[in-house]
Amino acid sequence: MKIGRVSHLKSGEILEGIFEDNSFYPFEESLISYFEKHHSLEGIKISKKAISITELKILTPTVPSKIVAIGLNYREHAKEFGKEVPDEPLIFFKPPSALIAHGEEILIPTFTKRVDYEGELAIVIGKTCKNVSEESAREYVLGYSCFNDVTERVIQKKDGQYSRAKGIDTFAPYGPYIATNIDPSSLEIKTLLNGRTVQHSNTKDQIFSPFFLVSFISKYITLLPGDIIPTGTPSGVGPLKDGDTVEVVIEKVGVLRNKVRSI
Amino acid sequence: MKIGRVSHLKSGEILEGIFEDNSFYPFEESLISYFEKHHSLEGIKISKKAISITELKILTPTVPSKIVAIGLNYREHAKEFGKEVPDEPLIFFKPPSALIAHGEEILIPTFTKRVDYEGELAIVIGKTCKNVSEESAREYVLGYSCFNDVTERVIQKKDGQYSRAKGIDTFAPYGPYIATNIDPSSLEIKTLLNGRTVQHSNTKDQIFSPFFLVSFISKYITLLPGDIIPTGTPSGVGPLKDGDTVEVVIEKVGVLRNKVRSI
Repeated sequence: MKIGRVSHLKSGEILEGIFEDNSFYPFEESLISYFEKHHSLEGIKISKKAISITELKILTPTVPSKIVAIGLNYREHAKEFGKEVPDEPLIFFKPPSALIAHGEEILIPTFTKRVDYEGELAIVIGKTCKNVSEESAREYVLGYSCFNDVTERVIQKKDGQYSRAKGIDTFAPYGPYIATNIDPSSLEIKTLLNGRTVQHSNTKDQIFSPFFLVSFISKYITLLPGDIIPTGTPSGVGPLKDGDTVEVVIEKVGVLRNKVRSI
Repeated sequence: MKIGRVSHLKSGEILEGIFEDNSFYPFEESLISYFEKHHSLEGIKISKKAISITELKILTPTVPSKIVAIGLNYREHAKEFGKEVPDEPLIFFKPPSALIAHGEEILIPTFTKRVDYEGELAIVIGKTCKNVSEESAREYVLGYSCFNDVTERVIQKKDGQYSRAKGIDTFAPYGPYIATNIDPSSLEIKTLLNGRTVQHSNTKDQIFSPFFLVSFISKYITLLPGDIIPTGTPSGVGPLKDGDTVEVVIEKVGVLRNKVRSI
């Protein structure tokens, strides 16, 4: 199932529901309340009345209270930055103010020197969790989406802390929707820059698996419904410039497409 | 004026309002909507009916969408960690899930090795801001509060990134209220551990002033009403243990008191 959030172009109404072909079917009850109660979306009431996606604007699939991202989680990317493979996940936060949806623009301010794409698989949390085991982590995951961990390299190097470099407004494209009931352990992941493949890997090359990550983070931090965990980027990161189109393409998950504009 | 949020012990109702002596006077309109419209709280409607604070539980003064904290902002503290005085503010994020109110417990998990207090003055944002000048930053500040940037030192050193070490649940005590209409440039700031002064400085020793910080951050990141900016800690940081009481005491701002418990 491909679930997400949209706003109606005419009425401005915000809806949660299912994408199917070129239509959208709104849920008739709250997604998060339903998932929190049933640990799954099976049986959730769905409207039979389709809305054409041409009448809708796609929003971020959830409104996360936080973004807990993972650094250096593909062996090849760790090598690319001359870093050793970590023995524990390295976590960092991006602020919700940086989020943009599929189809919105990544805005590059004039004061930046080098802004890179980083295509990632994001875990979407469906249920409050703290101190969950790797085995039970699955119950707390609503599904998976695409994420672009846009990063200013010069600031990242200068600060040491990733926060400013990765926290700039529009530097967190997320969407277009959440794929549910898929196995995240072996998915092809690509980033396309103006149609050309610039990152290409498979989630089986991840150092830490999605369920391990949920369990690990939840030892320290309470995860809330809607929170997302971008699980790290493969090798091949590179710069974006005005006019570029960047796409994060993940097998069974979707295509997250954003244009780039200098401001 | 000392403004904050409380819940009524009997009804559970959440109220915003003013603390005066041992009473609480609820606002009769939304604090943030009023401030966004008027750039000040002058003229906001306040109930004449006092509630005794013994009937109330103090909550965090706002519910921030993000916490944008500042590292190394007192000359003495930078020295203490053997760091050079930075030429730009170093920012990092703490997640909202770490927040606790005045009177709530800082919980120290068994897997931690050294958990330190860090008393700080926090700026509270009252109005959405992006790209504001240092001169106009004042209009976006609702007031100031106390903050304790609780930090696990061993994880901080291991990760390099501060996120996990500073993001643990309960590691962000904030409150008890927001002091409005005060000058933040020369305030005595102390941390007391079991009644003994362990940090003591004055905000005039800060490297970057509150209005400079708001302006600087807003170049990169949109600040939203309720967001907070803990402005860095003075020298004298040290460890907390089970049973300790830690207080952040700031002149004209308040006293934030939390007990510590091992879990």
